[in-house]
Amino acid sequence: MKIYEFTGAPNPRRVRVFLAEKGITVPLVQVNIATADNRKPDFLKINPMGGLPVLELDDGTHIAESVAICRYFEEIHPEPRLMGIDAKDEAIVEMWNRRMELGVLAMTAASFRNTSDFFKGRIPQVKEYGEVARNAAVKALEWLDKELADREFIAGPRYTIADITALIGIDFGRTTAIKIQDNQKNLARWHQAVSSRPSAKAS
Amino acid sequence: MKIYEFTGAPNPRRVRVFLAEKGITVPLVQVNIATADNRKPDFLKINPMGGLPVLELDDGTHIAESVAICRYFEEIHPEPRLMGIDAKDEAIVEMWNRRMELGVLAMTAASFRNTSDFFKGRIPQVKEYGEVARNAAVKALEWLDKELADREFIAGPRYTIADITALIGIDFGRTTAIKIQDNQKNLARWHQAVSSRPSAKAS
Repeated sequence: MKIYEFTGAPNPRRVRVFLAEKGITVPLVQVNIATADNRKPDFLKINPMGGLPVLELDDGTHIAESVAICRYFEEIHPEPRLMGIDAKDEAIVEMWNRRMELGVLAMTAASFRNTSDFFKGRIPQVKEYGEVARNAAVKALEWLDKELADREFIAGPRYTIADITALIGIDFGRTTAIKIQDNQKNLARWHQAVSSRPSAKAS
Repeated sequence: MKIYEFTGAPNPRRVRVFLAEKGITVPLVQVNIATADNRKPDFLKINPMGGLPVLELDDGTHIAESVAICRYFEEIHPEPRLMGIDAKDEAIVEMWNRRMELGVLAMTAASFRNTSDFFKGRIPQVKEYGEVARNAAVKALEWLDKELADREFIAGPRYTIADITALIGIDFGRTTAIKIQDNQKNLARWHQAVSSRPSAKAS
């Protein structure tokens, strides 16, 4: 078993933090996004969509998409539960994880992809859409600060995959100067707590 | 238990098809997107992100996000399994469902949102990004046609939630003239098969 990934990118970090929380170690193989190695024919055989990370099982099966990889490990190594503890809780965690994906991570990523020199000439950049995405991420953080007034973690009283997605989405926001504001005390308290866990530094 | 939804929108259809495949009936409450009822204060108490559908449990809990709602019903009413049958299969189904979300449904939706008169004045439309999304969806269908050359359904030999997402993403593509091309025989065969199931007409 191994995981193809790239240390500097946000999605591979989601899986590294998830595995660290479960105490699982999987060999990591670097695929350099900076030199577009993930768009070369050899890698496209592994994942035709070109994204990272990808889990390779011992039977040769490739699992792409960060949350699909996390779900595999949640099934084979349930404790600690990071994707919910029963039907209702699983649905709540999935709801919050998707809200953090759509509202935060996808928006900070779209802001970066559409405005940065890194992606210039690689993808059809639309700077105006990058600004729309940036504004959406800024508004999502304002909303999240209010949500966190009365609970410890994103999806409730327990740390879950939704916290991992939010942490990585917010941290990646730094690439386009999206950050927690001084008056967002609840969000700052939460960010300090999840950043202090050893998993936050998983590499 | 009830589900807030809107018949004309793609995401509510995902849940209706999913429930029909399982033979589950849940009362549906219409929230009119055309008159922006989903953005009014009463509905924002139910889902602060304003999206549909939302499942209301008997204890008053609200579950937003289509796939979170599906996961709840998969847990409480497992058969027929639509989200995988074991750890590896669940990961494969999740991978394909997300590929269909990111590559097809999100792109046909972004094409519509950014170019249609329906959303004019409601969201910051970026027509150029709508075109980028449209092109991405067209390319995704080309790729999907090749993928379907050697298997019956999107995620393998069984019908799953990934087929539901792909069906609804492709059908919604009609709003911006994204459609299966005459030479995409595998995709056309698959589309004919999934459209012929009674669930495809769930209302």
